[in-house]
Amino acid sequence: MKLVILGGVAAGAKAAAKAGRLLPDAQIDIYTDDTHVSYSACGLPYYIEGNFENYEILLVRSPEEFKAQGINVHLQHRAIKILPESKQILIFNIVEEKGFLIEYDKLIIAIGASPVIQQINNINLKNIFTLRKIEDGIAVKEKVLRSKNAVIVGGGYIGVELLEAFVQQGLRTTLIEYAPHIMPMFDDDISKIIKNQLTEHSNSQYEILTSEIISEFSGDMDGVRSVRTTSGLDIQTDLVMLCTGAKPNVEIAMDAGIAIGETGAIKVNEKMETNIPDIYACGDCAEETLVINNTKIWMPLGSIANKEGRCAAMNACGFEDIFPGVLASAVTRCLDLTMSLTGLTEKNARKHGFKPVSATVTKNDKVGYMPDVNNITLKLVADSESGLLLGAQAVGTGDADKRINVFASALLGKLTVEEFLAHDLTYAPPFSPTIDPLLNAAQILASKIKKTL
Amino acid sequence: MKLVILGGVAAGAKAAAKAGRLLPDAQIDIYTDDTHVSYSACGLPYYIEGNFENYEILLVRSPEEFKAQGINVHLQHRAIKILPESKQILIFNIVEEKGFLIEYDKLIIAIGASPVIQQINNINLKNIFTLRKIEDGIAVKEKVLRSKNAVIVGGGYIGVELLEAFVQQGLRTTLIEYAPHIMPMFDDDISKIIKNQLTEHSNSQYEILTSEIISEFSGDMDGVRSVRTTSGLDIQTDLVMLCTGAKPNVEIAMDAGIAIGETGAIKVNEKMETNIPDIYACGDCAEETLVINNTKIWMPLGSIANKEGRCAAMNACGFEDIFPGVLASAVTRCLDLTMSLTGLTEKNARKHGFKPVSATVTKNDKVGYMPDVNNITLKLVADSESGLLLGAQAVGTGDADKRINVFASALLGKLTVEEFLAHDLTYAPPFSPTIDPLLNAAQILASKIKKTL
Repeated sequence: MKLVILGGVAAGAKAAAKAGRLLPDAQIDIYTDDTHVSYSACGLPYYIEGNFENYEILLVRSPEEFKAQGINVHLQHRAIKILPESKQILIFNIVEEKGFLIEYDKLIIAIGASPVIQQINNINLKNIFTLRKIEDGIAVKEKVLRSKNAVIVGGGYIGVELLEAFVQQGLRTTLIEYAPHIMPMFDDDISKIIKNQLTEHSNSQYEILTSEIISEFSGDMDGVRSVRTTSGLDIQTDLVMLCTGAKPNVEIAMDAGIAIGETGAIKVNEKMETNIPDIYACGDCAEETLVINNTKIWMPLGSIANKEGRCAAMNACGFEDIFPGVLASAVTRCLDLTMSLTGLTEKNARKHGFKPVSATVTKNDKVGYMPDVNNITLKLVADSESGLLLGAQAVGTGDADKRINVFASALLGKLTVEEFLAHDLTYAPPFSPTIDPLLNAAQILASKIKKTL
Repeated sequence: MKLVILGGVAAGAKAAAKAGRLLPDAQIDIYTDDTHVSYSACGLPYYIEGNFENYEILLVRSPEEFKAQGINVHLQHRAIKILPESKQILIFNIVEEKGFLIEYDKLIIAIGASPVIQQINNINLKNIFTLRKIEDGIAVKEKVLRSKNAVIVGGGYIGVELLEAFVQQGLRTTLIEYAPHIMPMFDDDISKIIKNQLTEHSNSQYEILTSEIISEFSGDMDGVRSVRTTSGLDIQTDLVMLCTGAKPNVEIAMDAGIAIGETGAIKVNEKMETNIPDIYACGDCAEETLVINNTKIWMPLGSIANKEGRCAAMNACGFEDIFPGVLASAVTRCLDLTMSLTGLTEKNARKHGFKPVSATVTKNDKVGYMPDVNNITLKLVADSESGLLLGAQAVGTGDADKRINVFASALLGKLTVEEFLAHDLTYAPPFSPTIDPLLNAAQILASKIKKTL
């Protein structure tokens, strides 16, 4: 049995390792255009921040470790074309600049996603970076350690994580977002709170500009020198990070007749099978099922990629496994602010045909007399007709992430607001107020639903 | 309508406040033998620890605030006898040393619990304390600030919380537990880890002795001087804390013909009604339903008392409300160690007739390269026949409490291990490893259940 895996960061690496354990005698090959395999890309901002010195800490398994398990890792080998009829793949050796054909019995596509790059004048100047791969992280960190000023374009997850990293490294940083809000995966009211809290805590060291459109970069042979906006700003900088989103890598799949879903990522069933026999897809190039209402979304996250890689390997190796989907849970941090969410936001719930009702509270995360008490703002969303819980968002300097995960379990159990109100959460002064903010918000939500009915 | 409430710490105070809002014209009276009303008793260890200077921070509502709402608070008034037939209560004014009769239409009993005191020689010496009321806290703190050595008898919640408080106040402290394990609400294997972790982190400043029985206290007119054990130890000390458990205050209820449950606390239905019409009970004197299997337990916790007080008031005032019961969730901290649990332990599951299977993992609470990564040990328990989740225990210097509450939601939703494995928890390096310890443990649990079947 010849198992070929295209891509080897999270999903691909996990799939290979799992398959190697399931079928020790199979021939397993990873082909990746990357210079590294099996690494934690989500850790790159923390490497740049200086939480650890050696980037090799991010490497999970080396090609040698894979080899010891009988798995061949082919770095800098790009897959060019898949021929499903003959079960062949055209591979291009980037170093030797030479193509060759390989064969597979089962194929797992785990080729990830790529940064979205907008068309801006002089975008090819030196010191304008994206952050996705290990080399990106190394290059950015080297530049950061020799810089005083930075501009981050885009206020999503990577943008705010790099804001933290740059500020901790002492850079004067400007984050520029073209939309009216940063962190647009949250409802607008919550995004507004995020910006306010980050700005309140700000000092002269960083600035967040929203509704600001970049007209051009300018610089010289040494690289970018300034960022100009259509409103007339001219911001001096030593480096620019482009963090304007990512898109799934699907070209080679489309070209081979593999179906692409409405999200733009590769369509898979709960066994991670594509529409073509013996071809599986997983990780950031594949789409997910949102289990709340069985619709499709695209959640390019390392934790999900891992589970999908495992599931794809199980099924490709002839075992049975099911990946039912996601709740769309996510978290990040920017300096002392935690931002976390699960399920549907109010705006998304409306798009999905629900009639959502929401309740928002701002409360202490523990009893007020404890010395490390902090705030969290919590927004819960439910369907006003059925009372079904739909989603939650939490932001604050306090323990927001805990509340989101507690709520995620309730989404997994498909609980209604009334059922959730029977909750028994742990209580002690260092951990929560007598009545947890989750229950405060749920009580308000329940009373709103009663009024609606 | 005359509403009488006996007791006013958590459940009683909450019931009064809620009733005052529901029926502004009712005559509402709180009678309590205490010198204070409406306070956070759970905060006393943190007051003693020095987290805040003024004990008044623990007072939630003053008698004056109640008065402004039309509620009369009668401090130092002990209820002596309830006459359900005539709906009268004999009250004793402790200050004036005089009894008198009052009448009620509805009665809420919220008289709490009392420390269990063992019979030990010289237990009445000065500077031997229990901790339950505000005066206790004030007296203990005064003594702590003038002391160098302390002995804590009992290694349950209050015992370990006071260990933290005393160590932070610079006292050389010895905790003595007669049983082989401290924190006996956990399974023995987890209790062992708790003691090991507390002892590992220990320095010469504190010591934990298990299976050690106190034979006598000795001292003089100034108070206790030493604690002797049957094994021959003679520990010099300036003060002793008796933290050997609590028992519900039920004598006056029993005497009135109110039914007591198998747990020893007052029996109530989900409306907090006792067996006698128009008499409700709530808080630490009443028992709870464990919703996992609809059995009775006694959980004397402030958070639960609050909910029960609210429910009792609703029903006493003619509205409808239901308190379905508890999951037995609890948490505490001793120094940097968090201890948390929910649902049934393995030993309790067996007692309740389940055939439990368990899985224990020790893992990082976040990605290993983050500077503040810490350990947690997590034990999950499920029923081997149905796969139903039954309980979880977590201890460690890492974020143990989050995992327990996430699991508590799964208990609320009555999920099986297989259903839980479909979870989508938030992931980012500062918050959890790629695969959360909860899912590691659930995977092991699932494989054990498969083998059992």
